[in-house]
Amino acid sequence: MQTSWTTPPPPRDTDPSPAWELLLPAASGPPRGRRRELGAALRAAIRTGRLAAGTRLPSTRDLARDLRVSRGLVSELYAQLTAEGYLTSRQGSGTWVARLPAAPEAPVPRAHPQTSSAVTDFRPGLPDLSLFPRSAWSAAQRGALARLPDAALDYPDPQGLPELRAALAELLSRRRGVVVEPDGLIVCSGVAQALTLLGRFLKHHGQDAIALEDPGSPSEFPLFTAAGLRSVPVPVDTEGLDPVALAATGVRAAVVTPAHQFPTGIVHSPERRAALLEWARRTHGLLIEDDYDGDFRYDRAPVGSLQGLAPELVAYTGSVSKSLAPGLRLGWLVPPSGMLAELVEAKRYSDLGNTVAEQAAFAAFLRSGRYDRQLRLCQRHYRTRRDALISALATHLPAVRTSGIAAGLHLIAEFPTELGPLLPAASARAGVRLRPLGDYTAPARPTPTVFVLGYAHLGVPEITRAVAALAAALPDIPVSSVAV
Amino acid sequence: MQTSWTTPPPPRDTDPSPAWELLLPAASGPPRGRRRELGAALRAAIRTGRLAAGTRLPSTRDLARDLRVSRGLVSELYAQLTAEGYLTSRQGSGTWVARLPAAPEAPVPRAHPQTSSAVTDFRPGLPDLSLFPRSAWSAAQRGALARLPDAALDYPDPQGLPELRAALAELLSRRRGVVVEPDGLIVCSGVAQALTLLGRFLKHHGQDAIALEDPGSPSEFPLFTAAGLRSVPVPVDTEGLDPVALAATGVRAAVVTPAHQFPTGIVHSPERRAALLEWARRTHGLLIEDDYDGDFRYDRAPVGSLQGLAPELVAYTGSVSKSLAPGLRLGWLVPPSGMLAELVEAKRYSDLGNTVAEQAAFAAFLRSGRYDRQLRLCQRHYRTRRDALISALATHLPAVRTSGIAAGLHLIAEFPTELGPLLPAASARAGVRLRPLGDYTAPARPTPTVFVLGYAHLGVPEITRAVAALAAALPDIPVSSVAV
Repeated sequence: MQTSWTTPPPPRDTDPSPAWELLLPAASGPPRGRRRELGAALRAAIRTGRLAAGTRLPSTRDLARDLRVSRGLVSELYAQLTAEGYLTSRQGSGTWVARLPAAPEAPVPRAHPQTSSAVTDFRPGLPDLSLFPRSAWSAAQRGALARLPDAALDYPDPQGLPELRAALAELLSRRRGVVVEPDGLIVCSGVAQALTLLGRFLKHHGQDAIALEDPGSPSEFPLFTAAGLRSVPVPVDTEGLDPVALAATGVRAAVVTPAHQFPTGIVHSPERRAALLEWARRTHGLLIEDDYDGDFRYDRAPVGSLQGLAPELVAYTGSVSKSLAPGLRLGWLVPPSGMLAELVEAKRYSDLGNTVAEQAAFAAFLRSGRYDRQLRLCQRHYRTRRDALISALATHLPAVRTSGIAAGLHLIAEFPTELGPLLPAASARAGVRLRPLGDYTAPARPTPTVFVLGYAHLGVPEITRAVAALAAALPDIPVSSVAV
Repeated sequence: MQTSWTTPPPPRDTDPSPAWELLLPAASGPPRGRRRELGAALRAAIRTGRLAAGTRLPSTRDLARDLRVSRGLVSELYAQLTAEGYLTSRQGSGTWVARLPAAPEAPVPRAHPQTSSAVTDFRPGLPDLSLFPRSAWSAAQRGALARLPDAALDYPDPQGLPELRAALAELLSRRRGVVVEPDGLIVCSGVAQALTLLGRFLKHHGQDAIALEDPGSPSEFPLFTAAGLRSVPVPVDTEGLDPVALAATGVRAAVVTPAHQFPTGIVHSPERRAALLEWARRTHGLLIEDDYDGDFRYDRAPVGSLQGLAPELVAYTGSVSKSLAPGLRLGWLVPPSGMLAELVEAKRYSDLGNTVAEQAAFAAFLRSGRYDRQLRLCQRHYRTRRDALISALATHLPAVRTSGIAAGLHLIAEFPTELGPLLPAASARAGVRLRPLGDYTAPARPTPTVFVLGYAHLGVPEITRAVAALAAALPDIPVSSVAV
């Protein structure tokens, strides 16, 4: 009777000696992959200790007979695993399992557990990913890849694909008043990488701290810590970052969001812009302008970049994370010219440059005018959503006061003080998640009635429904009770 | 007569006052972009000092008349540039040019001059970029982007797209005997980024040096310097990295290329593999296995990875740079499990993760079996080219001795000693560029008759022609004169 070796367990009382049973399933597979399968099975058996170090292997003739494969195949197998160090052999005296120095394998922790929820999450900072122009991006990818010369597929220019730098310089100059030539711009993996490169640059040049806006973006803190810098929170008031408090810290670099402060939503006043530039000039310091959503202003033209006023005092950075998708990891950095060469080298040693295919696709997307259309599309949608949120609050929760200029992807909502104790349970009942402003202060502090509401990723019906549900879960509060 | 303002220079004797002439071209453009153009012109004039700080601007009415635009447009322009800090104004008392702290702009150096040459360059390490499967990659991009859920376009998992990690774990386990689960692998921007992440990890854990193969890859030296580590060259002999010399350095981390040493082309012997692992076990050290071309072996199955023997002692890294294109910046890192979490965090703070679109395309490309086909295609071409080079050398330069296993993208060619003084002029005459082995030693030393010949990026006719031309430019040397 022909034994089927593929059905475990193999019969104990038939031919092959039990020690080599573990190779049988591999030996009975299709001839084409047999050598590979046998090798994998033998390696695994040795690594896991199932075949102990010092075990003598059968002769090639015996094992070939046991496994019903050719002797040549077994010889090849032995030679291969001897070359790899799993087996040892000396001419004429046989083959043994080698002693491997492997430590027992530790279980690998899952780094990123998936979370999910059915609530309406007013998380700020997230664009509407359903607006990503998939087919236009696909077309840009295809067209760009077809046109790229072979040589462009080699190791890239770490500073960025020249045609993308040219298109970006035009865009930033035109839309944001940035002073930049194609050779003065670095393509990088989003604002996060720009901040990391700048943080390491500062560290390398003797700085040990950086000023961050308070409230501000909590993601910057660990990022600069990883770059070796201490983060010093500096208060933001109604005009922007406080220059007196900034000067008092003694630090010589600060991150600012002048066009639309995150998360308070204020715009830096002209006087404040001048004061910050004056601080940078006086201290030979550096302002890092994070223009994270500078393209989205709904009531007038966006305020031009701070960098345009003083290109030698400001490192300007932005990305497509709010206009296309954070997953593209496409951003730019325009540093003062004296910092450029060293930052390009840092980018080189970080990753040798961004992927060429995606850079070429983005360049084509920009050149075709499709990016401007995308900005207009997002602007239209986000403005509608902001209006819907403000209107829903006015209708259902008239006591809530909103602030922040008509821009960006979020606003600030302040509830009457007496609702503070009720809000956690009410928002849970209503299926609404609100982020307290205090999550964005350093250190985090409880702000039970002030929230940062991101609206850009939510549809109008969902925004309206969520606000109505929250209102229904709260007692009525007369508008007059709100302190102004 | 209607003056054409678009033809410079504007006539001096007509209406607008000379100080504002610089705004005329912008004002006479198409109405739609007029505000933007006017803003850009005014910003530029202020930035360059053409309009000095303290200059009083005309009233909105006067400037509107001079420029023949609406007064509302000028009002908007003044308000915009005041908000941006270019102008200052006090209610009722007019508008002035603000004082900008800008330093004079330094000229930006061109970072990457283009070089070109008409010679046949036997530069090692470069694949044939014309083999890049453009249409299949385009199809993978398109299909992957169409299938990605919206949520996948958000900030990525810094460790890598889960489906790509799954496909890579399967590939590496099957083809290279790497012991890895999808959760144990980090997607990164090529081997360069893997080495940078590992270098910084080592530095952070108190190491200040790393051992590198000598001869070896010269690109690793500055990369580890940038990570804060001193590079210690350790000799490579005919069996691989010298473990006695390695132990004598006292360092606790070493980069090795065991499957096909770069550039000597030897394969590490089983004894040497065991000795290196034993060194790592004894010193609690780390071996970094750069499997840069491990998929390309022409005479037998490639030797499996060193990592497979001892996953807790070896950090394994590789990329698509030799199989697809370096410009894709797609690579992987399989570290010992205890290092994983910290390396993922380092990747996060470096760039938040690789671009999702390209990761998804590569995952689709792997799953479809297209990557295996691409490896077979490259293998077939590179083998043919290697054979052509060896055959051309045997025919035209029989005194040249070649070495290196039948693998990879390059081989070593040793010319008779007496040709040393003649080779520079002869290769220049023949239009052939040869890289001396000494370019890959630390420190670089003259090796006038030993060269590393990369052949993978050259077609068979070009290889044959170049070798024949070189032979024609050299005197005949009898084979018997070569010392063996």
